[in-house]
Amino acid sequence: MQFSVRQFFEPESHTYSYFIIDNDNKQVVIIDPVKETYDRDKKFIDELGLAVAYIIDTHVHADHITSAIKLKNEYGGKLVIGAGSQINCGDILIKNNDEINFNGLIIKAISTPGHTNSCTSFYIEELKMVFTGDTLLIRSTGRTDFQQGSPEKLFDSLQTLFLLPEATKVLPAHDYLGRTSSTIGEEKTYNPRIAGKNKEEFVEIMSNLNLSYPKKIKESLPANLNCGDNKWILY
Amino acid sequence: MQFSVRQFFEPESHTYSYFIIDNDNKQVVIIDPVKETYDRDKKFIDELGLAVAYIIDTHVHADHITSAIKLKNEYGGKLVIGAGSQINCGDILIKNNDEINFNGLIIKAISTPGHTNSCTSFYIEELKMVFTGDTLLIRSTGRTDFQQGSPEKLFDSLQTLFLLPEATKVLPAHDYLGRTSSTIGEEKTYNPRIAGKNKEEFVEIMSNLNLSYPKKIKESLPANLNCGDNKWILY
Repeated sequence: MQFSVRQFFEPESHTYSYFIIDNDNKQVVIIDPVKETYDRDKKFIDELGLAVAYIIDTHVHADHITSAIKLKNEYGGKLVIGAGSQINCGDILIKNNDEINFNGLIIKAISTPGHTNSCTSFYIEELKMVFTGDTLLIRSTGRTDFQQGSPEKLFDSLQTLFLLPEATKVLPAHDYLGRTSSTIGEEKTYNPRIAGKNKEEFVEIMSNLNLSYPKKIKESLPANLNCGDNKWILY
Repeated sequence: MQFSVRQFFEPESHTYSYFIIDNDNKQVVIIDPVKETYDRDKKFIDELGLAVAYIIDTHVHADHITSAIKLKNEYGGKLVIGAGSQINCGDILIKNNDEINFNGLIIKAISTPGHTNSCTSFYIEELKMVFTGDTLLIRSTGRTDFQQGSPEKLFDSLQTLFLLPEATKVLPAHDYLGRTSSTIGEEKTYNPRIAGKNKEEFVEIMSNLNLSYPKKIKESLPANLNCGDNKWILY
């Protein structure tokens, strides 16, 4: 088995990080790593003797600080984030339909704006998996009330994801109830925000969530605009 | 894809439950369900319209109450637990090398005593997965200092699990650091308690862990000896 995927959880912000491992070439692609769990992740990388090929953030996170720059400083690897993220530290600003060729494994970028303007999902047809960031969550979606959020765009992005094969495994950036994955088919049918809803109904739902702001937004956004480098953040 | 496996997390006791789903026949085998997350699990079962075929506990848990009996009362299904568990509510008291035939998917019991005397792991060769309960954890093992625990037996049980193919995915009953799975190959090589250790060294390690007792042991053990039926428990 050349490629395997490992999922890790960070409990404070309920974030899932993913390691796509090339067991033959001892390389890894990391998606949405979190600063709080850097030591755990480092230990895992070191034990397996992995070289870091790419570090992907699905978007500029508002609820936690990415460990992308810390990983890059330690291991190298190219930082990947959606074009239009307004960050100055990405190596690859990825656009819709761009592909990362990870030793033959094609990781395809699907632009899925709505939660933020530059949210990107990553689809691996060979593994029947899609990493949906904060666009499609399990029985939920990302919020759309800050960071250039747009319920209209999110609706369209979800329709795009729903064109993937129904058995495709959905691997989101978060879950708050201990669920670790879903499928496109399940979310099309059972996601209470989007299943059977038209755009108008979806916008109505998203406009009335009345959520409080993430606790760490003030430190996360400026840090993540620097790929997690928060040495200049004073608060 | 006829069979798929879904992993769920219960944060209080850091327990993983597993749903092995037969998508064609709309049936499920549930491993180590937790009382605290019964409502979430019920919603999942109901949404997918699943019939419960088997409910497996890998052992009599000391840190949480199983929802096995509650699930059985609601959905039917056969309760499975290792022979010798001294419970009076199991439908199948499973022994080493016994097999559950779940619509053609063979789930093989591997007796792995040590954490408790009747701990059982469940191996599915077709899916390259082993559910290890509290026998083999990620970079750790179950403790051996109560419930007929025996570090000597646990050592032998771990050696048995290490005979499985190295790529076999290890799906444990717990992780305390957000890791969701491992492999037999990794644990053979990197598990600090057992990798490269002989029985004497392992017993020495296990005898000096000095762990405090699980918070819920007083309510969990009597309830779980009744498959989670705690209506007679007064404290």
